[in-house]
Amino acid sequence: MARRARKKGLPPGTIVHTGEMKEGKAKITVIDYDGSGVKEKSVKKVEDCYKFKGNKRTTWINIDGVHDVDVIEKIGKHFGVHPLVLEDIANTEQRPKVEDFDDYLFIVARMFYNGQKEGEVESEQISFILGKDFVISFQENEGDIFDSVRKRIRDGKGSIRKLGPDYLLYALLDAIVDNYFVILESAGERVEDLEEALTLNPSNKTLQEIHRMKRDMIYLRKGIWPLREVISILTRNESTLIKKGTIRYLRDVYDHTIQVIDTIETYRDILSGMVDLYLSSISNKMNEVMKVLTIIATIFIPLTFITGLYGMNFQYIPELGWEHGYPFALGIMLLVALIMFIYFKKRKWI
Amino acid sequence: MARRARKKGLPPGTIVHTGEMKEGKAKITVIDYDGSGVKEKSVKKVEDCYKFKGNKRTTWINIDGVHDVDVIEKIGKHFGVHPLVLEDIANTEQRPKVEDFDDYLFIVARMFYNGQKEGEVESEQISFILGKDFVISFQENEGDIFDSVRKRIRDGKGSIRKLGPDYLLYALLDAIVDNYFVILESAGERVEDLEEALTLNPSNKTLQEIHRMKRDMIYLRKGIWPLREVISILTRNESTLIKKGTIRYLRDVYDHTIQVIDTIETYRDILSGMVDLYLSSISNKMNEVMKVLTIIATIFIPLTFITGLYGMNFQYIPELGWEHGYPFALGIMLLVALIMFIYFKKRKWI
Amino acid sequence: MARRARKKGLPPGTIVHTGEMKEGKAKITVIDYDGSGVKEKSVKKVEDCYKFKGNKRTTWINIDGVHDVDVIEKIGKHFGVHPLVLEDIANTEQRPKVEDFDDYLFIVARMFYNGQKEGEVESEQISFILGKDFVISFQENEGDIFDSVRKRIRDGKGSIRKLGPDYLLYALLDAIVDNYFVILESAGERVEDLEEALTLNPSNKTLQEIHRMKRDMIYLRKGIWPLREVISILTRNESTLIKKGTIRYLRDVYDHTIQVIDTIETYRDILSGMVDLYLSSISNKMNEVMKVLTIIATIFIPLTFITGLYGMNFQYIPELGWEHGYPFALGIMLLVALIMFIYFKKRKWI
Amino acid sequence: MARRARKKGLPPGTIVHTGEMKEGKAKITVIDYDGSGVKEKSVKKVEDCYKFKGNKRTTWINIDGVHDVDVIEKIGKHFGVHPLVLEDIANTEQRPKVEDFDDYLFIVARMFYNGQKEGEVESEQISFILGKDFVISFQENEGDIFDSVRKRIRDGKGSIRKLGPDYLLYALLDAIVDNYFVILESAGERVEDLEEALTLNPSNKTLQEIHRMKRDMIYLRKGIWPLREVISILTRNESTLIKKGTIRYLRDVYDHTIQVIDTIETYRDILSGMVDLYLSSISNKMNEVMKVLTIIATIFIPLTFITGLYGMNFQYIPELGWEHGYPFALGIMLLVALIMFIYFKKRKWI
Amino acid sequence: MARRARKKGLPPGTIVHTGEMKEGKAKITVIDYDGSGVKEKSVKKVEDCYKFKGNKRTTWINIDGVHDVDVIEKIGKHFGVHPLVLEDIANTEQRPKVEDFDDYLFIVARMFYNGQKEGEVESEQISFILGKDFVISFQENEGDIFDSVRKRIRDGKGSIRKLGPDYLLYALLDAIVDNYFVILESAGERVEDLEEALTLNPSNKTLQEIHRMKRDMIYLRKGIWPLREVISILTRNESTLIKKGTIRYLRDVYDHTIQVIDTIETYRDILSGMVDLYLSSISNKMNEVMKVLTIIATIFIPLTFITGLYGMNFQYIPELGWEHGYPFALGIMLLVALIMFIYFKKRKWI
Repeated sequence: MARRARKKGLPPGTIVHTGEMKEGKAKITVIDYDGSGVKEKSVKKVEDCYKFKGNKRTTWINIDGVHDVDVIEKIGKHFGVHPLVLEDIANTEQRPKVEDFDDYLFIVARMFYNGQKEGEVESEQISFILGKDFVISFQENEGDIFDSVRKRIRDGKGSIRKLGPDYLLYALLDAIVDNYFVILESAGERVEDLEEALTLNPSNKTLQEIHRMKRDMIYLRKGIWPLREVISILTRNESTLIKKGTIRYLRDVYDHTIQVIDTIETYRDILSGMVDLYLSSISNKMNEVMKVLTIIATIFIPLTFITGLYGMNFQYIPELGWEHGYPFALGIMLLVALIMFIYFKKRKWI
Repeated sequence: MARRARKKGLPPGTIVHTGEMKEGKAKITVIDYDGSGVKEKSVKKVEDCYKFKGNKRTTWINIDGVHDVDVIEKIGKHFGVHPLVLEDIANTEQRPKVEDFDDYLFIVARMFYNGQKEGEVESEQISFILGKDFVISFQENEGDIFDSVRKRIRDGKGSIRKLGPDYLLYALLDAIVDNYFVILESAGERVEDLEEALTLNPSNKTLQEIHRMKRDMIYLRKGIWPLREVISILTRNESTLIKKGTIRYLRDVYDHTIQVIDTIETYRDILSGMVDLYLSSISNKMNEVMKVLTIIATIFIPLTFITGLYGMNFQYIPELGWEHGYPFALGIMLLVALIMFIYFKKRKWI
Repeated sequence: MARRARKKGLPPGTIVHTGEMKEGKAKITVIDYDGSGVKEKSVKKVEDCYKFKGNKRTTWINIDGVHDVDVIEKIGKHFGVHPLVLEDIANTEQRPKVEDFDDYLFIVARMFYNGQKEGEVESEQISFILGKDFVISFQENEGDIFDSVRKRIRDGKGSIRKLGPDYLLYALLDAIVDNYFVILESAGERVEDLEEALTLNPSNKTLQEIHRMKRDMIYLRKGIWPLREVISILTRNESTLIKKGTIRYLRDVYDHTIQVIDTIETYRDILSGMVDLYLSSISNKMNEVMKVLTIIATIFIPLTFITGLYGMNFQYIPELGWEHGYPFALGIMLLVALIMFIYFKKRKWI
Repeated sequence: MARRARKKGLPPGTIVHTGEMKEGKAKITVIDYDGSGVKEKSVKKVEDCYKFKGNKRTTWINIDGVHDVDVIEKIGKHFGVHPLVLEDIANTEQRPKVEDFDDYLFIVARMFYNGQKEGEVESEQISFILGKDFVISFQENEGDIFDSVRKRIRDGKGSIRKLGPDYLLYALLDAIVDNYFVILESAGERVEDLEEALTLNPSNKTLQEIHRMKRDMIYLRKGIWPLREVISILTRNESTLIKKGTIRYLRDVYDHTIQVIDTIETYRDILSGMVDLYLSSISNKMNEVMKVLTIIATIFIPLTFITGLYGMNFQYIPELGWEHGYPFALGIMLLVALIMFIYFKKRKWI
Repeated sequence: MARRARKKGLPPGTIVHTGEMKEGKAKITVIDYDGSGVKEKSVKKVEDCYKFKGNKRTTWINIDGVHDVDVIEKIGKHFGVHPLVLEDIANTEQRPKVEDFDDYLFIVARMFYNGQKEGEVESEQISFILGKDFVISFQENEGDIFDSVRKRIRDGKGSIRKLGPDYLLYALLDAIVDNYFVILESAGERVEDLEEALTLNPSNKTLQEIHRMKRDMIYLRKGIWPLREVISILTRNESTLIKKGTIRYLRDVYDHTIQVIDTIETYRDILSGMVDLYLSSISNKMNEVMKVLTIIATIFIPLTFITGLYGMNFQYIPELGWEHGYPFALGIMLLVALIMFIYFKKRKWI
């Protein structure tokens, strides 16, 4: 969020990258296909992909690296994209959204992946521009999330080659949503681990882990919830860019998104319950320690009192002179200890 | 949820079973009936039930075992079902939903049953395809949930034989919802058991049980809540496949679903209250132990101090030489103990 | 809820009483009136009230005892009531609802009354069928809730005799809602008692009472909340059975229902706050005990240490030989006690 | 709420005063004005204000004392008011509402004022009937809340004299809402006092005060929230009795109501946070006491053990005979105390 | 809120400044521009800016200091602004809102800035009047928030000079919303600091800080949430004063507002979780202290009892006469201590 403040005071449409600082140029790949064939190309200069515009085949331009503001600007200008859209592409803390500019749609989604540290979730903004015969996708980093789509295009598997750019957009969104399930899978494992830890050996670290998972769930929810709305808008078929046949597929993605959100909510509910369980578990453990120790102390206190009694130096303490005074005192102590023990037992404190 | 991740990267319409791994073929039974008679048949090869299509009688094909992807695919192709639907049938973590494909409706519901372990709730996805003159139902496992419906068809009891496939769909959904009440019945008993345990002998296990029940309620709610919407959509009579006379019956199921959800919500509220009650109960019990023990300790501390006093070895302690020094000391101790006892009594600590 | 499960597997429209088991026949009373006069009659056989149908006067048939399934079935058949409605009348765990069957309305409401045990709330389902010139009401038990309405009809007080069956329905619903205020009155008293108990002498029983009241409020809310919607539907004037003049009156009942729900919500909020107050109160009380006792113990510990010191048997402890050794030791002890006392006082622990 | 139960069983339209019992007659004042002049009059008999009806000037009849059921009935009959409205005027536990009777509007609002005891909030129902050329207002007690409006009419200040009865209604509602800010002002001061008390010297009384304020906020919210809806309905201009020019003013009152509700919600949130803060503060204070005391005890326990050791009466304890045995023992004790002190210090327990 | 009560009883349209008392005159600056050039002027007397009205160029009048009621009144009269609007401008506790007066729009927003004390958030009301060819903005204090806009107008950077007063309004709102990110940036840092403090060294001060931040978030939310609605209304294009091209820009601000609110909600969720974490952390720390100390005490209690035993003065205690009695006693003590130590170790209390 911090980085967003960098932009303060700049006029609208100024393209500023607000993500993590990075060097190097953006990597551009173009896949151009129709029912009859595929051309795939890695492009060095952004100008090299200008020629694919308007060739009646479906063109997918994928750009890895939105820090390369220059590329965004050039490609934006060539494809007639509104400056505010270009600004949003570079501004990587966008909320998922869809905007309809009549001759193209602008879509922002958020992709999540497990970070390098155990149990850390990271995210990346992915934006799409869907035109009449092209899709341009922007990623923050190079990644393999779209590889399955690329493969399907190459192989001509399924009907992807015949179904135009809106179906391609669907396939890309589907890849993103499919990936959520991978995240949820590992989250589910962490929840199970936590449940086990809670039962076996709850520690303060367990609680911090629960807390961290709750935060992750808030974070996931914040990134996925608006996507539901985005896809719902797409399925309402208000743009001519989305063909009727594709809507059925988008509804499928919509269902998946709902499923993901449902699962996140369930995890949140479960984690909230865990906090209670943890607190009670800890206090139970502590209580047990305290109880046993206090009982030991309490049994010995009267005994020590009796030893003190016969340790007094009065000249006339008759018991001290008795022949069996010592065993007598020991007997009394044993008796007292027994009575207390029975009393505690009876009240179920032991 | 984990298993859902298996499907990552596959093109839409790929039928992958995501439930528990299973062997063996699906079991197919066909019931074909109209007002005049019933034909019931167990089918070995899926092709044997093709002939029932379009015979103007109502045909109910029940398939137990969605892991048999082959059967789903063949039957889907023969009855003209969209590949995404077939995918959803095999993907057993669907949220309940209804989809209208003009010439057929696709409905997903979730059936719950008590697991083998005490207090464990399990679930199974049941899908329906409702056509002009047929219903195809898909279950994960063989089960007896639809036996009452079968019996009614066989016996010609009620008007089920006269009322076509939409009424059959209603009867099947009704059987599922009726079963929820059985689950709620045992849940209600568990709640009562927990209440009793809380009053008589609350232990950490009680809390874990409360926690588990809360999870079960979350789980049930997640599976039943969307069904409410599904049935509500069916009653809105937007599809020509649902006849007007059937809607009245569907509304009845709708009412039952609401009742079930209401009860689940009530249980959740009650269980939340129980956590408070448990925590307070435990801390009360602990407090009682601590209080009594501390009081005993506190009474003896000054007494022990006095014994220490007269155990000192000073050469000139006048009391030590007194003839009645010992009884005098005992008297003082008794007095101190009494004063403290009265003080504690007055402050209502004992 | 348990009893609802009895019905599993039965075809729709099977009339099964799901309330508490009861013997004996239903009690049927008929009041037949118009502007000019009243006829009141207690009916032995259900067939005796058939003749009142269609006589252009307003007929109110009241049936106490829905366990008498036979009566429900006969009267249902004679007045042309849908089997699903008859099923709902006998099934006494219905949620309040209204259903429009064009030539009659079916309404379910829930009546609450204080049970025999202190602070116990019980409930009963009351159903109504409103036709063109009759109202049939079904109660689970004989009760006096409608006596005031009967009296008004007999006395011709107010305009009730002139205003037809829809006004009668209003009067009956009004009697039910009026009764809620009686329940709320006693609930309000219990809340005040609890507040007092919390301030004066909170015990674990207080908490259990708070818990029980919270459950009662959940229970009341569940039964009354849907009634709000029922009456709201009636006031929307979509059925020709409700005359325009009556709507104004129904809106009055609607206002009362909202008031009742508001009060229930307020009680719930207050009760939630009480749990916090109780927990804090208990822990405060405990803390006070612990603090005083611990302070006593702590003051004596160093003193006892000093007595121990001079109780040691070393041959050369110079203080032991001093003439004023004993008063000196006593003085030191006093000093230590004083210093600790002042320190505690200063830190406001005493 | 209790008093509402008095009305059980009475026919609708029976006027029963449900507020606090009171004696004496209602006080009636009439202000009759138009652009050219004002007539103000205190009326003894209710019949004396009949003549103001229909005189084309704006007439404001204010009635203090709704316990005087007779006055309400007479004036109601003369101005053609529906019996249910009269019932609601006397029934002082109404929820704020507006009802449109075509030729007049009935509006109920709730006025709050600080009670005589510190921090106590009381309330009073104020009802209005707005006709074509009159406003009748009903208050429970005599009060000065409308004095500023009276003064403005008398002085002809502002445009109040020119703008008819709907503007008068606005002015009266505005006076009520303005008064809410006075209540919120003192509530705000109490919140600040509580915050200070929490930081300086939290006691059980502080918590009870927080609890009481939370209840007051619930109470205020319950009375003000529906007023928002009332004014919103008035601004929607559906009645011909509200002129278009007045709507702008009503919207202003609407904004104020929202502001009041916002502030109440904010106070509730803050108070909820305070409970946490209080609990933590108390337990912190207790912990501190316990810790210091326990540490003192723990340091002395091993020392006392050593004194006990050398207080034993064995005949052969070599140390007892040493010349420097006593200083040696003292040294050991000092050492033990030091070691423990350093250990505690290191673990940051002191 | 307190200050709002000052206005009680005044007629509507009375302009009363309810903010902090201030002296001095308002500072007025005028910027008058069109595509061809800019005139900027600091105005001494309010009358000097009258001439800019209606000159077909875009005029921006900025007034710093709404306590100068006189200026508001004069300018309001000259530009034909409704008295209720002028009242709202001076009344600085307004909720953000927009009001459409056909020939001008009135907009209220709230600006937040970090106060002088660490972690303190303050706010200021900023109002706008948007006319056909002018924007008048009112601030409470002189500030630099609009400097970037001024600079863009002066420099002719971007298209601001060509796009009229509605675009200017957008630019000003954008500057306000951009500033929210600055506040959120420092809030985010405080959250991180708190998280660190919680892990390393939680103290009561940490909790108070969490509490204070929660209050700040409530405060921010209350001021920003309604702005979302305000901008949403502006984008719905119902006023002719907002040109179609500007709506795209306003939608961008709308997105930013949503992002801000999302972040605030996330912070609130995180802070709520922190309270749990804090409480558990503190009680963990305390438990640890208590446990270790209690264990030490418990080990010594039986030992001290043994020393007491052999400190008794009975004449016949055989062990006292043994030659190795002392080492024997020491041995027993060591044994007891060892057994207890092993027991504690085994139960994992140490």
